[in-house]
Amino acid sequence: MIKTTPLHDVTSLVQAPLDRLNRELLDDLAPGHPEMRPLIEHVGGFRGKQLRPVLTFLSGMAATGADTSGGLGDDVVTVAKVVELLHTATLVHDDVLDSASVRRRIETINHLNGVETAVLLGDYIYAKAFHMAVQLPDPAAARWLAETVRVICQGEITQILHRFDYQWSEARYFTVIAEKTASLYAAACRLGGFYSSRSAEGTANEGRLRALEEYGLELGIAFQIVDDCLDLDGDEKLVGKSLGTDLTTGKITLPMLYLLRDEGQAQKLKDLLGTSEAEGLRRLKSEFPLEHAIAYAMEEAQRRIAKAQASLSQLPPGPARDALHQLAGFVLDRRV
Amino acid sequence: MIKTTPLHDVTSLVQAPLDRLNRELLDDLAPGHPEMRPLIEHVGGFRGKQLRPVLTFLSGMAATGADTSGGLGDDVVTVAKVVELLHTATLVHDDVLDSASVRRRIETINHLNGVETAVLLGDYIYAKAFHMAVQLPDPAAARWLAETVRVICQGEITQILHRFDYQWSEARYFTVIAEKTASLYAAACRLGGFYSSRSAEGTANEGRLRALEEYGLELGIAFQIVDDCLDLDGDEKLVGKSLGTDLTTGKITLPMLYLLRDEGQAQKLKDLLGTSEAEGLRRLKSEFPLEHAIAYAMEEAQRRIAKAQASLSQLPPGPARDALHQLAGFVLDRRV
Repeated sequence: MIKTTPLHDVTSLVQAPLDRLNRELLDDLAPGHPEMRPLIEHVGGFRGKQLRPVLTFLSGMAATGADTSGGLGDDVVTVAKVVELLHTATLVHDDVLDSASVRRRIETINHLNGVETAVLLGDYIYAKAFHMAVQLPDPAAARWLAETVRVICQGEITQILHRFDYQWSEARYFTVIAEKTASLYAAACRLGGFYSSRSAEGTANEGRLRALEEYGLELGIAFQIVDDCLDLDGDEKLVGKSLGTDLTTGKITLPMLYLLRDEGQAQKLKDLLGTSEAEGLRRLKSEFPLEHAIAYAMEEAQRRIAKAQASLSQLPPGPARDALHQLAGFVLDRRV
Repeated sequence: MIKTTPLHDVTSLVQAPLDRLNRELLDDLAPGHPEMRPLIEHVGGFRGKQLRPVLTFLSGMAATGADTSGGLGDDVVTVAKVVELLHTATLVHDDVLDSASVRRRIETINHLNGVETAVLLGDYIYAKAFHMAVQLPDPAAARWLAETVRVICQGEITQILHRFDYQWSEARYFTVIAEKTASLYAAACRLGGFYSSRSAEGTANEGRLRALEEYGLELGIAFQIVDDCLDLDGDEKLVGKSLGTDLTTGKITLPMLYLLRDEGQAQKLKDLLGTSEAEGLRRLKSEFPLEHAIAYAMEEAQRRIAKAQASLSQLPPGPARDALHQLAGFVLDRRV
């Protein structure tokens, strides 16, 4: 018997379009090209929870109050594909940036085929995603998606430029994680709603689209805060990647900003940043009130999730709205 | 007195829109953003001959037989900007791939700010270029440009996967250089013609657009052949980058394919590939009939240029058509 997890219950509502997306994406990306196809197939193995396309489909249903995913048109599927491809391209490039050799238990492209192929394959996937986006009716969506990628890169670059910057503030931290992480969640939700209401009702209700966008934005911010907490106190076996990297690379996240408030701790933390992951994590856990710092950050994540859930009141009731509500709760509980 | 080069004479026809492009591009890319702006300004220093936007403007004039650049509309300028940005993004990523520290006498982004920032900045510039492309009327152009970037990456990846592949053929070499280099020249020419005739005459003559596309394609192929010759027998001081890298990285170009035809030379060349640049160039020049190999490749480049020039007969006569004819000739003479 297959164990049904609660997250599976939520996503089962949109299993049909998700299966279609996964069936079609390989041929969309590399139609019969003998050189590209093995690379694209390999990248397909990185597939995780596919949270972003799930959000696009649920948002599409929630925008019109639909009971099933049956009425979601082709455009919603295309948007979900574009969002998934843009995410995949950022993963391929992230692995280059982190010199990572393994992602989700399979070898990264940079490890297997070299940095050059990985940089170019990321570019290839971005180009294909933009090509698909331009095929959507109404160029506003393609513009929104291109702007989202620009904003993601801006956030990532800003974070890199402020490594080991002890003047870094909570306000700037929130701006950066909204840019680098939450903007794609916001686009996934808004554009899912946009194209489903466009095909179902001929027009989109801007109030509902804004509600979906805010939901995605707050969810994405909470997701990144939880991610930053897991890097400091997660279980390496569950998370499936090496932890403590933010300490080593001097990326100052919300729990660290909490510790930096206290002058005595601040000096100790500055001495700790830049050491190895193992050393950094060991000292962080033994010499600092880490549980307070994590609790502080998780409270912020909870506030963001509550805000995301509250924004759903602008949408018609139905199973998709309920699923979005539940899904937001899972973000706080995740250990992986 | 400023010495006027012949190339300058040709490009002076489109100096006005080129100046506008260079005046506006910085603000287009990073409007007042304090973190991004210095990076974008730095990348602006890589500016070279700007052959691609020059081709877009000249093609725009040639498609309608215009005598001056005065009638080129905003859309032609936008296309030229997009083409220049896409080229710039590939340069930023190329420097990562080659671990290059200097480009046109200034430090590369990867050398100055690290590989991570360089990868992300390339992505940022791609995203901005696509965002601008989507703002153009008629989504066909944005689709064409996205497809061009996909094809560029496909060509680059194919070439990397076939390093040290002694089964490599001339046919595959021509396919790869058409993809990685000539496709952007073809797009620059075709889309310049498309948008100028669209604004001047309300419609584009497909025969003229195809002629411009073929001109760009053949010019681009010739450009890459000359580039590959310069890597083996150029003057390092003039070319301004280290030579012999194709020998070291096992990138099998047209002059090498000529040498590989002879069985005795083939074995010697296989032994030489993969050695250092200096060693490889020294042995290539002393032990092989390099001048014959270069002459063979340059004859092919000449045929391509003749084909490019012949395709111009489909266009109305005028100064821009003459300039395109002349410009093609410069490709064969270039030493830098």
